[in-house]
Order: sequence, then C-alpha cells, then structure tokens
Amino acid sequence: MRIAVLASGRGSNLQALLDDLAPDTAPGRVVLVLSNRADAGALTRARQAGVRAAALADGAGDPLTLLETLRSAEAELVVLAGYLKRVPDAVVAAYRGRMLNIHPALLPAFGGPGMYGHRVHEAVLASGARVSGASVHLVDEEYDHGTILAQWPVPVRPGDTADTLAARILAIEHRLLPAVVRAVCRRILAGAPVEPLASAADAFVLANMPERLEAALVNA
Amino acid sequence: MRIAVLASGRGSNLQALLDDLAPDTAPGRVVLVLSNRADAGALTRARQAGVRAAALADGAGDPLTLLETLRSAEAELVVLAGYLKRVPDAVVAAYRGRMLNIHPALLPAFGGPGMYGHRVHEAVLASGARVSGASVHLVDEEYDHGTILAQWPVPVRPGDTADTLAARILAIEHRLLPAVVRAVCRRILAGAPVEPLASAADAFVLANMPERLEAALVNA
Repeated sequence: MRIAVLASGRGSNLQALLDDLAPDTAPGRVVLVLSNRADAGALTRARQAGVRAAALADGAGDPLTLLETLRSAEAELVVLAGYLKRVPDAVVAAYRGRMLNIHPALLPAFGGPGMYGHRVHEAVLASGARVSGASVHLVDEEYDHGTILAQWPVPVRPGDTADTLAARILAIEHRLLPAVVRAVCRRILAGAPVEPLASAADAFVLANMPERLEAALVNA
Repeated sequence: MRIAVLASGRGSNLQALLDDLAPDTAPGRVVLVLSNRADAGALTRARQAGVRAAALADGAGDPLTLLETLRSAEAELVVLAGYLKRVPDAVVAAYRGRMLNIHPALLPAFGGPGMYGHRVHEAVLASGARVSGASVHLVDEEYDHGTILAQWPVPVRPGDTADTLAARILAIEHRLLPAVVRAVCRRILAGAPVEPLASAADAFVLANMPERLEAALVNA
C-alpha cells in the first residue's frame, strides 16, 4: 500500500509511521509527505528517510493541486498526522474510506472545529475529565466526525497541564497510529472493508482492570 | 460515616455498597435507602440488609421532605446510585461536597438532561466511540455536571447493544462506586477536602498499555 502523509508540525507521528513501516515486510510504505507549511519538521524527516516531500504552496486550498499531487504519487491511503488545514471535500470524496486522521482525545468528545493542538487538552482539563485518550477515525466532510476505527484511553492526572497531558497522549499516538495503519493496509489488501477494529477495543484486557483499580484506590 | 443511598431501580449498585461496607472496619455504613418508586428493588435489598428504607411519596419533589428524612437519619454522605429524579437545589446545597452520583459514561461526554439508562449507551453506540466507561462525580445543580472524582474506561465492542454495553459498564460501576465511597469517607474523616482522586487516574498502569494494544492489533 502506497501511503501519503499530511502533516503541519514537527512530524513525530510521521516519524513513528516511517519507523514502523521501514521493514520490507510491512503492509505499506510512506511514499509522499505533504505539508501546508514549508518549514514543517515533517518535511525534513521525510527527506531524511528518502521520501518525496513537498509543501503545498496554496495550503491545500485548491483541491485539484492536492488531489493531483496525491494521484501523481499513486497514493492509495492518506494519513493526516497533525494536519491542521481542512482537506477539501473533493479530496475527501476521492479518498473516502482511504483517509485516516488521528485526534488527541476520545471522540466524539473534545473534537470539532477549533479543537486542535493544546486547545483540546485545555478543554479536557477544564472539564475535569479523569480520562482522555487518542482516536483514529476515517475522514469525512466534518472535522473529527468520521467513523472511529480505534481509540485508546489515557489517564488525566492531578497537576496535569496541557503540555504534560499532550505528551502522555502523544506517546500513545505513536503506538496507536502505526498499529491502525498496518491493520487498515492489511484489510484493504485482503479486500475487506475498512471498519472499526474489533480487537482494538478488546485490548483493554478488561478482566485485569478492577483489581488494578482497587489496588490504586486503596490508599486514596 | 453515615451514608444515605437514593436509588430508583433494582439497586445493584446499592447492593455493591452494602456488601463492601458490611465489615465493621469499613469507613462508612449505609443507614438509609430512599427511592422515588415504592416498588424499587433497592428498597427490598435495603430491608433485607436491615437498613431503614422508605419510598418518597412525592418523588422527592418536596425538598423539605427529602432533606428532613436525610437529617433525621443523620446522613453525612448521600450517594445517588441510579436515582433518576432531580434532587432539589435545597438538598444539593445542604449536602454540597457530600453528595455523589455515578453515571455510566465518561463525562462530560454523554451526560446531561435526558441522558440516563439505556439512552446513554444508545448515544455512545450511535457515536461510534470505542471507549465508554463510568464516572463518579460530586452533585451540583446541573445534571451530571459536578466535579469528577474518578472515572474508569470500558471498551465498546463491535456487535454491542445498549444491553451488552450497559452490563459491561455496570460490572465496573460495582467496583468503582464502593472504592470511591470508601476513599471519600476516609477523606472526610481525616478532614481532607473531597476532590478528584489522584490515584484513581493512575490506576491505568499506563506503562503496560502499549504492549497490550499491539498484541491486540497484530491480527486485526
């Protein structure tokens, strides 16, 4: 599977994907990295890995430019890894069911327009939630709205700031995103539908949870 | 600590509290169970445990009746365990910081007016979330709004119905609610403020999570 990654920032989720998909046996590889910012660290990381990298001069505002670039690279799967620009509807339609996004919270909570970067974590902290997490979902025409493929919970701890919470969730993102991209590649290659990942939800090993809960609360 | 429990249904969370607080060494005991329904299983369970039980003739619509009943039992802590009626503001004010509620989702998502019973789980399933859970929070004048004391995540599995998800979350509620009630009793007895439980959030044992995640996704 030929994968294109869109990223606006320093590209740590891109790096996690590059590292995970480096072996020849991986079910996909990153063939193109695009950014709306010419100075994005993601572009540097891509070039260092020998992957074609380009800044979208128009910030991807022109759907034809972005779509043509993706098609010229024969991208079969598109991954938004910290991409802060809206993807034009025509591109979403062309890659429907083949475009993933990672969001640093448990959607549908703390998502939608304006909910990106530290704003997400500040909203979580303001709400008093003791659980946040990461979500990988299919992209549709609405922000953070498409089918959720996998989620993973992360504790919110007393004293957390947006920075400490972001770092804890990012560590999980770096594991969750490559795992989901691999699973999606395998499904597409097998001709299976891309749908919520059954075993991701089972990964909690629920049976172990009450004991750990009690152990943690015993001295609370 | 003398604890009053308000419940509208069959009272399985009440039973979990009665069982957990039965030992003489427990930091609190249930001294009163009230329901807005005379046929609630919770009242039967209370009487079987030798605990004073009463139906609120007016469905707790009269704050004086409820407040006087709580005070006559010298209740120091009030626990809403599946209580579907609104608690009058005067009672909330009289027990501010001393009234807990358990909600079968990860607040602030899937809470608020009308979000009770199966409606909660149907909304979670409709959203596509792969994670739900249980929350224990302090009661204030708004539904499901007060300070969150503890939460625990529960997986949403493909094929789940409101019934199967409710049952999975209820199993966690039966562990979470007594643990939080014990912790809150200990804090009040120690003169400490009732605030979010630090170690509840740490109970995830985050370090173990990525490995389990990968093991679960490897064949997804």
